[in-house]
Amino acid sequence: MTVGQLLISLILIFAAAKLFGELAERIGQPAVLGEMAGGLVLGVSGLHLIDPHQNALHLFAELGVILLLFLIGLETDFDKLMSVGVTATLVAIVGVAVPFAGGFLVGRMLGLDDLVAIYIGAALTATSVGITARLFSDLGHLHDKESQIVLGAAVVDDVIGLVILAVVSAMAGGQTLSLAGITRVTGVAFGFVIGAIVLGSLLAPFFIRVIARLRVTKALFFGSVVFAFALAFTAEKIGSAMIVGAFAAGLVLSRTEKGKEIEREVHDIAQFFIPIFFVIVGATIDLRTLNPFDPATRTTFLIGLLLTIVGIVGKMASALVAWRQPVRKIIIGVGMIPRGEVGLIFAQIGLTAGILTSGLYSSVAMLVIVTTFMTPPLLRMLLGPRKVAGEPKEHYVIDAFKDEPPEDPVRSETSVA
Amino acid sequence: MTVGQLLISLILIFAAAKLFGELAERIGQPAVLGEMAGGLVLGVSGLHLIDPHQNALHLFAELGVILLLFLIGLETDFDKLMSVGVTATLVAIVGVAVPFAGGFLVGRMLGLDDLVAIYIGAALTATSVGITARLFSDLGHLHDKESQIVLGAAVVDDVIGLVILAVVSAMAGGQTLSLAGITRVTGVAFGFVIGAIVLGSLLAPFFIRVIARLRVTKALFFGSVVFAFALAFTAEKIGSAMIVGAFAAGLVLSRTEKGKEIEREVHDIAQFFIPIFFVIVGATIDLRTLNPFDPATRTTFLIGLLLTIVGIVGKMASALVAWRQPVRKIIIGVGMIPRGEVGLIFAQIGLTAGILTSGLYSSVAMLVIVTTFMTPPLLRMLLGPRKVAGEPKEHYVIDAFKDEPPEDPVRSETSVA
Repeated sequence: MTVGQLLISLILIFAAAKLFGELAERIGQPAVLGEMAGGLVLGVSGLHLIDPHQNALHLFAELGVILLLFLIGLETDFDKLMSVGVTATLVAIVGVAVPFAGGFLVGRMLGLDDLVAIYIGAALTATSVGITARLFSDLGHLHDKESQIVLGAAVVDDVIGLVILAVVSAMAGGQTLSLAGITRVTGVAFGFVIGAIVLGSLLAPFFIRVIARLRVTKALFFGSVVFAFALAFTAEKIGSAMIVGAFAAGLVLSRTEKGKEIEREVHDIAQFFIPIFFVIVGATIDLRTLNPFDPATRTTFLIGLLLTIVGIVGKMASALVAWRQPVRKIIIGVGMIPRGEVGLIFAQIGLTAGILTSGLYSSVAMLVIVTTFMTPPLLRMLLGPRKVAGEPKEHYVIDAFKDEPPEDPVRSETSVA
Repeated sequence: MTVGQLLISLILIFAAAKLFGELAERIGQPAVLGEMAGGLVLGVSGLHLIDPHQNALHLFAELGVILLLFLIGLETDFDKLMSVGVTATLVAIVGVAVPFAGGFLVGRMLGLDDLVAIYIGAALTATSVGITARLFSDLGHLHDKESQIVLGAAVVDDVIGLVILAVVSAMAGGQTLSLAGITRVTGVAFGFVIGAIVLGSLLAPFFIRVIARLRVTKALFFGSVVFAFALAFTAEKIGSAMIVGAFAAGLVLSRTEKGKEIEREVHDIAQFFIPIFFVIVGATIDLRTLNPFDPATRTTFLIGLLLTIVGIVGKMASALVAWRQPVRKIIIGVGMIPRGEVGLIFAQIGLTAGILTSGLYSSVAMLVIVTTFMTPPLLRMLLGPRKVAGEPKEHYVIDAFKDEPPEDPVRSETSVA
């Protein structure tokens, strides 16, 4: 990719993100919906102006979701998250088990092999923590108890998803994974999160003290970013997911004395990369494979419809676990719905391994598309208009909606006069 | 490149930039010297930990220099620049002509062909506007009259350099470029800058009014970045340089009512990319080709030494043009010295076209290395310590050293307690 091609791609991505984001906000929807719609227009479903599989764009998008999760971690109140930890874990487990069982049954009903049916079930389990977090913060509800439960559950879901992915990948490769193997994979995945938080919490104050001694420009910012990237990298190497590592880094740093400052420093740079991620998510989607009026794709459409229903019902069911909590369960259920890029990654691996036919891949993709695009307007309806009407909306992750007033008046300067 | 490889590269780049930048500042040198030294350590001269020719890293670095020039444009007082415009243009012309003649003569003395001698002369003409601008701002002197002259001259130099590049590339391809062809190339190169500023100044207020109506997050920031990227892209398409387009975009936007606000918005994101550029500049350099104690590279070293002397004397001579201006001419002369990446690009093209031998390429590279690394300590010596001692140093391009006090107290928060 030449620099010129990169500039044109970024111009298109930013213009589409902001124009469609603006349209979305004008009709009362979250900006993230507009960004994904902008991606649809630019990408393989639309004008083919950007190639979402191009290496450099893919890297920019991945930095976007890593920085988003880092920022969400920084914004998350650790104690609040822990206080809903058990509920969130239960929501996550049910939100994995029910869609998995449902997907498996659909596969068996269609007369598919066990392995294929398992794969379909697995593809239904993911919850897109990126889309969920961005949505709650777009709508100004990131710090609600419901949001914290969904956020916690989505992170746990990601970790469970990795275990499932390891298992099904092994099965796809013709191996039979032993119980010991599964236990090991599970232990590593969960061990990383706990280890990162415990070790990180011990090291972070030391790290902050060293940084404070430096004279060089933006030392705190670069120190924090290096910390987050290092944890993201380690997470992947160890068999967990980068976004889980980035989230853990945010959680750990938010508890240091410089937490608020780091949050402000990271915020602006994250803004640059985050829209790239959501536009690329939209650009990856191919709507043509799902035309119900074309006989060639009608079966794909119908199976997709079935999977979508199973996927939605299965995730909604997970909210029932929160029965003891004084929360609006329907918000939790809806918040768990979006599959986002994670579902597509599962399906992609199945396709590459030759387990899913391209028809079944498209059906899974339909589930991903519908759940990803239905959630923003649905949550918007359930949560009502933005909590503080008329407030300038400057943060993806919004200080203004916390208990304390925004600390940095400069951030509000781009508000509409 | 995988995401993991990108994260590791960025971790290394940021860590090296800040550690060596810190070291440089502690010994009283500009941070940019440290960043380039960090690149030497990480790159082909040192540990081979990053590959500066890797596509994604190259793209990040290029975004860095584009954003740097955009920011410098935003920081530049247009009227002040125009008031030294004639002097700057004369400095640029002499600063191209003398090193070119000197390089050509050296080539002839060595018994080389006319074409090779012309190429060597051409490689001596560049002035690295990126390094120069960063240096003056690191040292807190970006708004001095001397700095404005050097900055203006360096931009004109870049435009002249493009004309020379077009001519020598055509000669390398065996074509003889007609006088009409040269005139056309020259007209386009200079026409773009004037056209961009005139047209841009007419369109910018309208553009700002449209942006002000948007509700979406960070509309002003993204609008400005898209504007800068579009001008950079157009500049290259039309036969000028991207950094010239980015600088013109900054100049134009700085004159709008939102100029200061845009500057603040762009500043933080530029911080992320700029160090990548300077580390990559360092990482590209191969010091081993210049070992004076190895008989195999001794000739290369001696020719390089000769070219370096000619290059330095030639650029210093350009300052004499400013004889009517009440300025410190030596600062102008020294400010014009660094060749940076532009000289390397020239040499690279000559090498690829088979005009320069790899020995001559290394000699030119030596000129680039020496001029790039000698300028920071030299300017530091001439300018003395930072203008405002004890001030927290938060900006590459420093608000704190303007006439008005810094407007944004939040920016200073990473200062040493």
